[in-house]
Amino acid sequence: MTVTRVSFENDYNAGCHPDLLKALVETNTVQTTGYGLDPYSDEARALIKSACGVPGADVHFFVGGTQANLTVIAGLLKTWQGVLSADTGHINTHEAGAIEATGHKVLVVPSHDGLLSADAIDLVCRAYAEDPTAEHMVQSGMIYLSHPTELGTIYKKSELVAIRKVADRWNLSIYIDGARLASALTAKGADLDLASIAKLSDVFSIGGTKCGALFGEAVVINKESLKQDFRSLIKQRGGLLAKGRLIGLQFVELFRDGLYYEIGKHANSMAMALAEEFRAHQIEFFVPPVSNQLFVILNEDEAARFGERAVFEQITPFENGRGVFRFVTSYATRREQIDTLFS
Amino acid sequence: MTVTRVSFENDYNAGCHPDLLKALVETNTVQTTGYGLDPYSDEARALIKSACGVPGADVHFFVGGTQANLTVIAGLLKTWQGVLSADTGHINTHEAGAIEATGHKVLVVPSHDGLLSADAIDLVCRAYAEDPTAEHMVQSGMIYLSHPTELGTIYKKSELVAIRKVADRWNLSIYIDGARLASALTAKGADLDLASIAKLSDVFSIGGTKCGALFGEAVVINKESLKQDFRSLIKQRGGLLAKGRLIGLQFVELFRDGLYYEIGKHANSMAMALAEEFRAHQIEFFVPPVSNQLFVILNEDEAARFGERAVFEQITPFENGRGVFRFVTSYATRREQIDTLFS
Amino acid sequence: MTVTRVSFENDYNAGCHPDLLKALVETNTVQTTGYGLDPYSDEARALIKSACGVPGADVHFFVGGTQANLTVIAGLLKTWQGVLSADTGHINTHEAGAIEATGHKVLVVPSHDGLLSADAIDLVCRAYAEDPTAEHMVQSGMIYLSHPTELGTIYKKSELVAIRKVADRWNLSIYIDGARLASALTAKGADLDLASIAKLSDVFSIGGTKCGALFGEAVVINKESLKQDFRSLIKQRGGLLAKGRLIGLQFVELFRDGLYYEIGKHANSMAMALAEEFRAHQIEFFVPPVSNQLFVILNEDEAARFGERAVFEQITPFENGRGVFRFVTSYATRREQIDTLFS
Amino acid sequence: MTVTRVSFENDYNAGCHPDLLKALVETNTVQTTGYGLDPYSDEARALIKSACGVPGADVHFFVGGTQANLTVIAGLLKTWQGVLSADTGHINTHEAGAIEATGHKVLVVPSHDGLLSADAIDLVCRAYAEDPTAEHMVQSGMIYLSHPTELGTIYKKSELVAIRKVADRWNLSIYIDGARLASALTAKGADLDLASIAKLSDVFSIGGTKCGALFGEAVVINKESLKQDFRSLIKQRGGLLAKGRLIGLQFVELFRDGLYYEIGKHANSMAMALAEEFRAHQIEFFVPPVSNQLFVILNEDEAARFGERAVFEQITPFENGRGVFRFVTSYATRREQIDTLFS
Repeated sequence: MTVTRVSFENDYNAGCHPDLLKALVETNTVQTTGYGLDPYSDEARALIKSACGVPGADVHFFVGGTQANLTVIAGLLKTWQGVLSADTGHINTHEAGAIEATGHKVLVVPSHDGLLSADAIDLVCRAYAEDPTAEHMVQSGMIYLSHPTELGTIYKKSELVAIRKVADRWNLSIYIDGARLASALTAKGADLDLASIAKLSDVFSIGGTKCGALFGEAVVINKESLKQDFRSLIKQRGGLLAKGRLIGLQFVELFRDGLYYEIGKHANSMAMALAEEFRAHQIEFFVPPVSNQLFVILNEDEAARFGERAVFEQITPFENGRGVFRFVTSYATRREQIDTLFS
Repeated sequence: MTVTRVSFENDYNAGCHPDLLKALVETNTVQTTGYGLDPYSDEARALIKSACGVPGADVHFFVGGTQANLTVIAGLLKTWQGVLSADTGHINTHEAGAIEATGHKVLVVPSHDGLLSADAIDLVCRAYAEDPTAEHMVQSGMIYLSHPTELGTIYKKSELVAIRKVADRWNLSIYIDGARLASALTAKGADLDLASIAKLSDVFSIGGTKCGALFGEAVVINKESLKQDFRSLIKQRGGLLAKGRLIGLQFVELFRDGLYYEIGKHANSMAMALAEEFRAHQIEFFVPPVSNQLFVILNEDEAARFGERAVFEQITPFENGRGVFRFVTSYATRREQIDTLFS
Repeated sequence: MTVTRVSFENDYNAGCHPDLLKALVETNTVQTTGYGLDPYSDEARALIKSACGVPGADVHFFVGGTQANLTVIAGLLKTWQGVLSADTGHINTHEAGAIEATGHKVLVVPSHDGLLSADAIDLVCRAYAEDPTAEHMVQSGMIYLSHPTELGTIYKKSELVAIRKVADRWNLSIYIDGARLASALTAKGADLDLASIAKLSDVFSIGGTKCGALFGEAVVINKESLKQDFRSLIKQRGGLLAKGRLIGLQFVELFRDGLYYEIGKHANSMAMALAEEFRAHQIEFFVPPVSNQLFVILNEDEAARFGERAVFEQITPFENGRGVFRFVTSYATRREQIDTLFS
Repeated sequence: MTVTRVSFENDYNAGCHPDLLKALVETNTVQTTGYGLDPYSDEARALIKSACGVPGADVHFFVGGTQANLTVIAGLLKTWQGVLSADTGHINTHEAGAIEATGHKVLVVPSHDGLLSADAIDLVCRAYAEDPTAEHMVQSGMIYLSHPTELGTIYKKSELVAIRKVADRWNLSIYIDGARLASALTAKGADLDLASIAKLSDVFSIGGTKCGALFGEAVVINKESLKQDFRSLIKQRGGLLAKGRLIGLQFVELFRDGLYYEIGKHANSMAMALAEEFRAHQIEFFVPPVSNQLFVILNEDEAARFGERAVFEQITPFENGRGVFRFVTSYATRREQIDTLFS
């Protein structure tokens, strides 16, 4: 239903950033060829490659994240391989079995606050390698990371460097799901920039949907073997948008003058302001607040009181009167909305 | 590249109909819940069910046609079944193996001008039923039709009634791909309205992308067994749009006051005007012109001359100096563009 | 390599029970039709249905267990559903992703000594049902059990009755993998007979490979919806044996005069004799010994000493000098071999 | 049912060649490790590699042909590719959609008497390459051939050389299904020996089931990229036989002293004797008789008369009183059976 209360439900509850809307309106009558072969998409690809410092990369656009994930993973894995993921990973929990539907097992690795560690990955790979029955088991072919994670945490550069090392040891590709990458790149203390991410991964996505766009995820491919015929793979999985320029156009706006970072910064600053209020009200965090998703522990009274003023998601059921709740900020969040929540 | 010549390349070479754009702009800041559970999508569902006379149907929205096709077909078929399709069917030719990627064979049925006949389907089913090795063969579970077809032709009501009868005889579901349904519904001589289509099929789609929307296909499900959990299936196949309201909103505009039909009529009238000019210039048709796609036979000189003024698709390579070419009209086509082509 | 030491490596390390071999030799020149439509297979089906008290069931034969599992599961699940399994379940650990390769997720349920409990299943199903994001998650469609389990333990009738109740509550099918069913049926304290298993499950298998046959698993289907066209599904998955009679023939031998039970009893009695020796030698059990697989904890010295006399499998790597080892008995195990092990 | 009439129904209607049975009996009590890692399988692999002149090849054993085909094809193709096959190819007609169930389209190439030509393949590949919409179509990744074909015809060396050339031009792998290879290798006029087949293909199978074994197909892999982890792929598809030695053992017998060729020769000579009788009785051939499958055209009277004496398959329904029938010979066919048929 339409939200009359303030919404912290998620970062995709409105249309898009006004700049992107303006661009869509202004180009509405221009005629271009379809399927992302238009000049807007070309420009967006050039801007993204430049921002990432990878002139030789391929960039493709998807409407949504699950589609991007399933297509990239199906493309990277050999038919008998599986993908390593945090137990909390989006592909393991909230994509309705999309990866398995492409024929691949999600191999769960224990995580901490949504983060995978190089050691945890190494342990799983070593156990497989040393198991005399390994050929009856699913071999890992790649690592799936999200940055920020589903719990809003982010990787440090040193952590990703360590994971890369483990990946190389075990001959694994790394794919980073950047559905909320703008927020991770601009979080306080973040030391992973686009260039590092591009260098340390084989493939990664730059999320638009949750970072100010109507929709759209850019996938940056550095791995040579995945480049060839990738558009056929996108088409096969139903992901080639007829009016592909709509995504290209939005990414042009996001990357021409740094709007993508501005959006991330704004969402983060609103999240930090919100976190400060939570702290001031003695609300405990389930996960330390870092990016634009906050996870707090509320008792039933608190949840009810906030619920009168705002929409947000309950993550775990009440246990002993307390549950985990998520509050999300975006380009559209305004300081007054936070004040309303605590009014 | 950006088209400076007039474009008859396809019906998805511009943005969207101005009414839809206006609605997107006006609602841009409204906050709603995601994944098509918003009030705009609800209203669109109600309008579509009413227009089709099927209050008990389920309506779901997809971004694109291939995604809609693969999801519906994966949902309708049992794991060992295949889908009957015209040899020219979109799922057999231009979806990069999307159906096979869900595990199902496309069972080719010979067609005429893109149209399947009840007899041709019956023949295939009878051959299977009478074959002593049938259990080693792929069993048909459903019929895939497009209306209009990939060649722009349309079914008569009597033809669809006959196909329904054959479908019932062999226990097959019918799915009608209506990517360009607006054009079929409003073509000269068309006697299949939305209600008849809803009644004679199990599932069908109402195309938006090629009928004035930025994107969006509505899928109408009358078959009970497909209704349950269909949203999980959409999610699994990567087709659940986060900001689902964008499709709902557009379908509200298309179906509130008959805009969908107006768009179809306009595209058809432009196509008929174009056809008249082709006839006046002694250009032969490859398929009789009926809806918004025209298939004509051009020699190399003609192709070159038209190519100076307009963008359009070559369908078959030149053979003895002649090839088949496609010209497509849309909501955005203007009479002057036709005049330019023949100037 | 050929084993010169005594082998407790597994229960499929020799050919087959002499009675089965005799039958194969005697019928070698008889000509029959193929693919399990021969009189031996017919007789085996009749014997099995009679033994299970399910005259209306369908019985199909597979060469191996993984093939049986993947085919049954692909047939039972809707395309968007997953299968509940113990974390230790064979389909989750030792089938190289065979289930995922059919497009379905294995939904892990915590287990105890390889056994699933009704409560653990109920908890998982309830969490799903109560999750507001459930449609983004994988829905359970069935329960996979093995009896005996991968750890050699067996279900009590009361436990299976409770699981059936939970399955009915959540609308789940039950499939019981009986790769070593002969051993479970005849274990000390077993109160689940074939008729109870047939009544409490929707589908179950009766293993031949590990119970005296060269190969062969019989799958008994009581669920109506899975019966239709099941042979096409087997063929599609590559499981229809050309000389299907070879399996039929062996099951005739196994079920005509109770040989199946005799084989189970013999394997169990050898396992119990072996267990008694382990106890006498102060060897600790990792799982209480019940059926024909024993899991013991050995230190490096013990492992080395036994390793000089016998072949057996190390299940976990040494940790603090101790590891888990598996010893398996079969129709072919003889008392002298046990004595050799402890000599 | 058990055949009391003479059977020309197929070449898998009896048990196995007596030499193979003898070997199975003699080794029945020997204990070995499982899954094809036993010394019999090792010996069989060595014999096959030596017979094919490919010391560096990998050899794997499957129980049946459909399983071998689907596993090899799933391993060779990238996820978005399809396999070229004759319209009459086994994978296109009689494997119940097994290839599509692995996610890949079978791309049909017109054939003559079951044989593909280099030109027909080239035509299909060229059309794809020149199609501007190619990325929306299924790309070919490999060629599937059967030798002998489903119609009993065989390739000449020059034909296979030409196909190899086309395959190299379009970067396609070649897989040869040798379900009845013994018959092809020893057919009159055959100029393709094992070494040539190994050299001209990337992967090929050596059929046992239809050439004297109880069951078993050897797959010879020369393509490096398919070798790695191929056993995991077999396991994933349910094809790893627990008592793998049973296949190894049979192939040892078949290849130690040339029995494989003897079986092929015997089946062919019986087929030629049968063909001569058909000719003498003015029975017309549907396909020229070459190997151990004969396809003849019978009228209803003839079919009825032969039907009193023998079992055989009707391939096409009667049309104008005439239909196509198949007669198959094997290692077990005896001259007296032919005489009975014509008595």
